[in-house]
Amino acid sequence: LPLPEKSLIARIRRQSKIWPGVAASIGDDCALLKISPGHEALITTDFTLEDVHFRREWHPPESVGHRFLARGLSDIAAMGGKPVAAFLSLALPAKLSQSWVDRFFMGFRKLADRYKVTLAGGDIAQSPQKILADIMVVGSVPRGKAILRSGAHPGDFIYVTGRLGGSAHTLRELIAGAKCKPSTHSRHFFPEPRLVIGQFLRAHNLSTSMIDLSDGLSTDLAHICDESKAGTKIFSSAIPRAFSEKSGKSKKTGEANQVSLALALHGGEDYELLFTTSPRTRVPKQIAGVPITRIGEITRGKGILLVDENNKTSKLKPQGWEHFS
Amino acid sequence: LPLPEKSLIARIRRQSKIWPGVAASIGDDCALLKISPGHEALITTDFTLEDVHFRREWHPPESVGHRFLARGLSDIAAMGGKPVAAFLSLALPAKLSQSWVDRFFMGFRKLADRYKVTLAGGDIAQSPQKILADIMVVGSVPRGKAILRSGAHPGDFIYVTGRLGGSAHTLRELIAGAKCKPSTHSRHFFPEPRLVIGQFLRAHNLSTSMIDLSDGLSTDLAHICDESKAGTKIFSSAIPRAFSEKSGKSKKTGEANQVSLALALHGGEDYELLFTTSPRTRVPKQIAGVPITRIGEITRGKGILLVDENNKTSKLKPQGWEHFS
Repeated sequence: LPLPEKSLIARIRRQSKIWPGVAASIGDDCALLKISPGHEALITTDFTLEDVHFRREWHPPESVGHRFLARGLSDIAAMGGKPVAAFLSLALPAKLSQSWVDRFFMGFRKLADRYKVTLAGGDIAQSPQKILADIMVVGSVPRGKAILRSGAHPGDFIYVTGRLGGSAHTLRELIAGAKCKPSTHSRHFFPEPRLVIGQFLRAHNLSTSMIDLSDGLSTDLAHICDESKAGTKIFSSAIPRAFSEKSGKSKKTGEANQVSLALALHGGEDYELLFTTSPRTRVPKQIAGVPITRIGEITRGKGILLVDENNKTSKLKPQGWEHFS
Repeated sequence: LPLPEKSLIARIRRQSKIWPGVAASIGDDCALLKISPGHEALITTDFTLEDVHFRREWHPPESVGHRFLARGLSDIAAMGGKPVAAFLSLALPAKLSQSWVDRFFMGFRKLADRYKVTLAGGDIAQSPQKILADIMVVGSVPRGKAILRSGAHPGDFIYVTGRLGGSAHTLRELIAGAKCKPSTHSRHFFPEPRLVIGQFLRAHNLSTSMIDLSDGLSTDLAHICDESKAGTKIFSSAIPRAFSEKSGKSKKTGEANQVSLALALHGGEDYELLFTTSPRTRVPKQIAGVPITRIGEITRGKGILLVDENNKTSKLKPQGWEHFS
């Protein structure tokens, strides 16, 4: 391989912290994970493909590394779990610079260290042209306490964390040719997985079901409906829309500065959490500094109903987030 | 996506058996695995790349699916573990036929069912041209009982299961243009991961260290030396060479029919096990019908010494298996 595979693995191994919970690590046939007594293992996998999930001309390598891990951590958050270890498989083109790979790992490692996630294994291969990365994140959750998609009941209230549509709005700007600084568009370039909130909801037994918003509200809400065999009604005026982070100089505040309802309903990759609670459950207005907003309720029906500002009800079709379309 | 991703996932889900040990499965944010009390989790990941690990014109799809899973199962075997679940990520070219995908899963599923491995999750994406698959296999092993690469001591005996070089020999024939039937060249097309042997050695506390032979004897033995901080001496006459499975009609038996010593020393992908034992340990001549052969011992030195038939000793350099070179 033109890329110095062995030395790359050796370097990653040296630079990576081994947090408690991992025994044998990179360098044996398997990684050995200690799942605490009374806990279950959570496992999630995600592909990240160049020109599908990121573009080299738009996304600095640190952002690619961060977002790549954030997707997996967000899945762990959505079950109320604690991440333990990550395994990553990389297919890299031969002509990729060493500095790109180094900066990618810098972004990856910074997020991994913040949540004490050990990079416990992986594989590197050469790809013909494009960067392709597959990640697996392992977490743990107390036995029987994972928050599934299937636990919502008719009458339950629906909540979301944070504000929606911000990541998709930045992507629209990038597609339109705008320059977006990672520092001012952090919800797109460096999304924060809501691990603290997921663990809080689980520890306090607040939610009946949960999912992370990676494919967009309409699509992820449909997943909750499918798995819980129920319908939902949401209110357009209640949906917390992200403030558009302007690329230009002029900055206004207030309503005019919010992203469109369409982006808040269908835009993906916000990595906020959507959860349901019994109507008797008291839910804090904020958790870990992040606003929690009630947007609707679970119904006996089928599918998603959207109630607009004039109290008119229409069917909302899940649109499925396509990253660069 | 031109490939019907959703229906493909739905179909895989329907066709896959959920074995005990897996709770929530495909269809939630994470898979939820129950690791038995007193057990640790084993995790291994492997890339399988078209034109690196297989060729569509040589390998029937069933063989690609089988070998893809066998690589991961072999890693679990090498720790003395029991496989529990597999997660697979596939990047498939748009023009790939549905029948190829179906037959790939048939090969995968047949091996998975034999060892009660649940396909518990995964991801599908489109690739520009070539098939790329990443697998993660999760297993379990009683706490503190995993057989590591690092446990070999000077004086320990070295054993291998089965016969070596058979898979590489078939590959040489394929490269030379020969037609090799999967039925008569099964060690290459349908290698059997040595799970039963690995678990036997672990259950009876027979081995001090273990590795699976995926990169070739010389390379994998070097891994044992590196991790155990020791050297080895092996005897060329003791190495059990595979019988060459002739592609033509004439079949001879005996010495002439064995693969070359070079292939047995350096050929990869046999997926046999190499393990070390204390010299006082009695090792059965066969385990689960597979011959067990002593090939040398661990030394205080560094690196690998090869003793030839005339008792002459030379240094053996790990050659690193490159699949199609």
